[in-house]
Amino acid sequence: MAFSPASLLRSLTGPPVSNREAGTQKLKVWTGVPAMGLDALSSASYGPEAALTILGAAGAAGSHLVTPVMGVIIALLVILWMSYRQTVAAYPNNGGSYIVARENLGPGGSLLAAAALMIDYILTVAVGISAGVGALTSALPSLQPYTVWFCLGILALITLVNLRGTRESGVAWAGPTYLFILCLGIVIVCGVAKTLGGGPLHPAIAPPGAAPAVEALTGWLILRAFASGCTAMTGVEAISNGVGSFEEPRVERARLTMAIVVLTLATMLGGIAYLAQHYDISAMDQTKPDYQSVISQLAGAVFGHGWFYYLLIGAVLAVLCLSANTSFVGFPRLCSLVAQDKYLPHTFALPDRRLVLSASILFMAAFAGALLVAFDGITDRLIPLYAIGAFLAFTLSQAGMAMHWRRELREKPSGAIRVKLFVNGFGALCTTIALAVILVAKFVEGAWLTVLMIPCVILLLRGIHAHYRRVDDGLLLQQSERAIDLRKHREPLVLIPLDRWDRLARKAVEQALRLSGDVVALHVTSLQGPDGDDERKRLKSDWDELVAEPARRKELPPPKLVFDSSPYRSMAAPLLRRIEKAGKNRSVVVVLPELVERSVWGALLHTHRERRLRAQLLRYGGPRVAVMCVPWVIDEETPETGIAAEEE
Amino acid sequence: MAFSPASLLRSLTGPPVSNREAGTQKLKVWTGVPAMGLDALSSASYGPEAALTILGAAGAAGSHLVTPVMGVIIALLVILWMSYRQTVAAYPNNGGSYIVARENLGPGGSLLAAAALMIDYILTVAVGISAGVGALTSALPSLQPYTVWFCLGILALITLVNLRGTRESGVAWAGPTYLFILCLGIVIVCGVAKTLGGGPLHPAIAPPGAAPAVEALTGWLILRAFASGCTAMTGVEAISNGVGSFEEPRVERARLTMAIVVLTLATMLGGIAYLAQHYDISAMDQTKPDYQSVISQLAGAVFGHGWFYYLLIGAVLAVLCLSANTSFVGFPRLCSLVAQDKYLPHTFALPDRRLVLSASILFMAAFAGALLVAFDGITDRLIPLYAIGAFLAFTLSQAGMAMHWRRELREKPSGAIRVKLFVNGFGALCTTIALAVILVAKFVEGAWLTVLMIPCVILLLRGIHAHYRRVDDGLLLQQSERAIDLRKHREPLVLIPLDRWDRLARKAVEQALRLSGDVVALHVTSLQGPDGDDERKRLKSDWDELVAEPARRKELPPPKLVFDSSPYRSMAAPLLRRIEKAGKNRSVVVVLPELVERSVWGALLHTHRERRLRAQLLRYGGPRVAVMCVPWVIDEETPETGIAAEEE
Repeated sequence: MAFSPASLLRSLTGPPVSNREAGTQKLKVWTGVPAMGLDALSSASYGPEAALTILGAAGAAGSHLVTPVMGVIIALLVILWMSYRQTVAAYPNNGGSYIVARENLGPGGSLLAAAALMIDYILTVAVGISAGVGALTSALPSLQPYTVWFCLGILALITLVNLRGTRESGVAWAGPTYLFILCLGIVIVCGVAKTLGGGPLHPAIAPPGAAPAVEALTGWLILRAFASGCTAMTGVEAISNGVGSFEEPRVERARLTMAIVVLTLATMLGGIAYLAQHYDISAMDQTKPDYQSVISQLAGAVFGHGWFYYLLIGAVLAVLCLSANTSFVGFPRLCSLVAQDKYLPHTFALPDRRLVLSASILFMAAFAGALLVAFDGITDRLIPLYAIGAFLAFTLSQAGMAMHWRRELREKPSGAIRVKLFVNGFGALCTTIALAVILVAKFVEGAWLTVLMIPCVILLLRGIHAHYRRVDDGLLLQQSERAIDLRKHREPLVLIPLDRWDRLARKAVEQALRLSGDVVALHVTSLQGPDGDDERKRLKSDWDELVAEPARRKELPPPKLVFDSSPYRSMAAPLLRRIEKAGKNRSVVVVLPELVERSVWGALLHTHRERRLRAQLLRYGGPRVAVMCVPWVIDEETPETGIAAEEE
Repeated sequence: MAFSPASLLRSLTGPPVSNREAGTQKLKVWTGVPAMGLDALSSASYGPEAALTILGAAGAAGSHLVTPVMGVIIALLVILWMSYRQTVAAYPNNGGSYIVARENLGPGGSLLAAAALMIDYILTVAVGISAGVGALTSALPSLQPYTVWFCLGILALITLVNLRGTRESGVAWAGPTYLFILCLGIVIVCGVAKTLGGGPLHPAIAPPGAAPAVEALTGWLILRAFASGCTAMTGVEAISNGVGSFEEPRVERARLTMAIVVLTLATMLGGIAYLAQHYDISAMDQTKPDYQSVISQLAGAVFGHGWFYYLLIGAVLAVLCLSANTSFVGFPRLCSLVAQDKYLPHTFALPDRRLVLSASILFMAAFAGALLVAFDGITDRLIPLYAIGAFLAFTLSQAGMAMHWRRELREKPSGAIRVKLFVNGFGALCTTIALAVILVAKFVEGAWLTVLMIPCVILLLRGIHAHYRRVDDGLLLQQSERAIDLRKHREPLVLIPLDRWDRLARKAVEQALRLSGDVVALHVTSLQGPDGDDERKRLKSDWDELVAEPARRKELPPPKLVFDSSPYRSMAAPLLRRIEKAGKNRSVVVVLPELVERSVWGALLHTHRERRLRAQLLRYGGPRVAVMCVPWVIDEETPETGIAAEEE
């Protein structure tokens, strides 16, 4: 097989996947935790650090406030958990914010949710990768100058893996996920045990300690720390989006999975905050050469830099990269839903040859890559943009659920539903307050960008929808005109642009004669400069002898040959003139002889004038023109090869 | 009119140009000097400098040898002039090296000449622009760090101007050309006058003087200086390439123009060398911040940095940029000749809507830009690559002329022809020796790259030629098969892929019924997942009522609707299966309903599955398949609009 870009792509992404092979493997609880909970769990590695970064500006006294701040965040997390438990039960197929908002808040709410989620997913990829690379450069400081390149490399790898399709993700990811939980759990348990031993702490490797205070310890500072810390909650909604992926009884399994994820995350957040306070750990600047992430400092303080330290850092890196990967599952699924509602191009809803939604994957990778480059792969710079999308989606989802219960309550009032309405309503209220805090606290630092992006995305989605509606308005048939109309049934006029008399031209004429008795070949002179009169005369006599005479013998109306000139060297203009002359009601078929090239090499060498001509005829020819390509294939292939190429 | 890339291009390059407007303006001598001689004349500003750069390595003693070295080069120039005078007379239409080599040395020689000339033209652009920017940064040293950006900016400007087409170049360029000759002439005359005054010289601004010697003053060094200085002769052949552009009596006018150009150039070269020696001027390093070109030092030494200095530098910059422009005329003309011989893609021979050979212009701009970036826009680094192409072309042209006279001599021996044979033979010998010197002296410094490129280009040209020959072998008709063959004349089978019943589908079916009585519509299920049985039943009943029944009433054979599944979501595979089933001898027309989008926006939103499907059908369908596109145009336009768009 000849080399081509298609074959390269094929060898990178693998053979096509049949519809029959579509995933039927359902999740159990132990595979559900890695498959659905990874995004949430991995937040433990950047959430507390984000809060510490802000608090550290007030020196050691500020850093010591991390425990109460994380306490509030954990409380919010529990409220959110209770709220989503209800969503899981009410939407046992797919309770993503987009669906819940669409069904309960109308198109305005659903588009807002879609925009928020899209931005959130893309930021999850960027933050996950940059935090993972941050962990890596903590352990291997010499890699620090190459932060952006490592980020882009990991992004490319994840993108490629996802273009191949990730079918067995749950099982494959269980290893890193449980390793991460285990290692971090050991660090927390041993660390806490040491602090409880009483007496002064002797860290194995002392953390560098807080930088001197540069800001006063105000309420505003604490609010900003809370807003940054809220990034620890992102990803909690993932399970409610994919209840349908669980084995029956799915609601119970999904709820159990959610309980495990939330409680593990809460424990980790609490433990990290507690230990950071007792070991005097502060956040450091990722742009500086001696950067150490909070988890790296923590593990160093408890155990030193032994093999266990490197195991933990490896697990953190793996989990953060895989958390980026969960967005590669969630984003295409969301885009596919939005595209089915015709708010995104149809391409986003079409699975490719690997049954993968590759358009969304490439789109997402491009945007996440742009973010990583724009923000130099520094987690701390991405954080202010991040939590807004997530909390907006939380709020819309909870508000949607509250509307859902209110409607149910109106239909058949009951105490149980009243409680459910209260839980979701309270959840919506809390996340709204958190959203407001985040907006205000982070606006100047970067949240404005997200706030600006959301209406832009919504406008784009609306624009796309309006376009599709216009197309459908043009295409859908009224009841009265649904049957075919044979009143204008008449042989078409067939036009053939003719350059020289060769096999291709002969084939085109033969084909044209099969279609109609009214065939006209058009030779356009001076396309490349003045044609000789000789040339024209020879073509004319060839035509009479080789075409008109045989047709007459077969008792077919002889096709005509006409000449026209084109002072501007356009092939389309003389053809369009003929089409115009044929009259408004005459159907015209233009037969274009076309040389088909198999190889990239050959395709580069030919002029593709036919392609341009075809586009012009279709665009300007009006409703009565059709264009027929009669191919002459160099190195011909058979239909069997084509079927094999599509399904091999 | 909607905004589109096409309309942007149109407004940048202007309206189309008719064949009738093609240039009829012929050159006089005074316009011929700027139009044809610019490339040669501008060499004065980098040729002596290139020799001085090498000689300077041996300190002041080396720099003082510039006069004898330039003397040899001037002698060679005069030999070349005598030689080309004969070419002009023998080929009064177009005596470029490619033509002379093709007619006298066969395809091997012509391809060698073509490759050498192409490389020479591209290097002329790069060297001209970089030397011009060198002059600019001599006058305004603060611009020096932006050398590459200035180079690329000027290249972009020249490219754009040439894409618009340069019809009145001779007249427009007379200004800068004669200003350049005048200013440099004044500097030389005044400078020489001062040296003849006797006594010590007092330069207005003393040149920085030679750097200390780092190399011994060997014969090898002098050879290398000669090789570098030979770049001063590039461009001399231009007049022989375009004798046809002169007014009658064209041979006389061309010869007079050549005499003026060669004698002016020789005077400038001699004058610069003489003054450089007397004023102790050496070449400086263009990468250093205090760089001054040789001409800048010279003008400074004679007149100081007054208005005249800036006028001269401006003229140098203009002339060098315009000399790059002459390549933009020569290269497309050469490519067009080569493409007409089918050694380059046909596109290179086709004038575009502005009657400009835009393919070659863009190709050349891309390569020259790459060279400028790769060599940081430093003239000194480009020089070693440069002279090879020019001298190879000189040699081939002279050798070709010698062959020409030898043949004439064999036909009718005469003394005059014997002299001509001697002149061209001697010219060929001299340029061969110079070429050998350049090759040896410059090989390590960069000439190896040119030596490597030439066979690569030749291989590419041969590959392209072989491809076109294969295509023609496939397309050209044998005498016995020239008439059309109507034995297989039979109604085609018409296939229509059918998605849903809408206006587009209805139009496709109506069109299909006009072509044949054997119409089959194919609905492929599970393209996006499992289709409901309901869907299929509804489509079937719609078909019977809306299509089959009306056709029967009109006494047409009712078209059939069939269903097929495609587990790999390929639309092409089921169609190809049907085509295969139809049998080897049955002609098949596949009717593709196609939504045509006018706007870029709309084109982005649609999936272009038809385009891919069409390509697959043409490629794999075999010789009996034709593909007909039935368009549905959103926001329909008329043929008049199309004609206007092509010829406005």
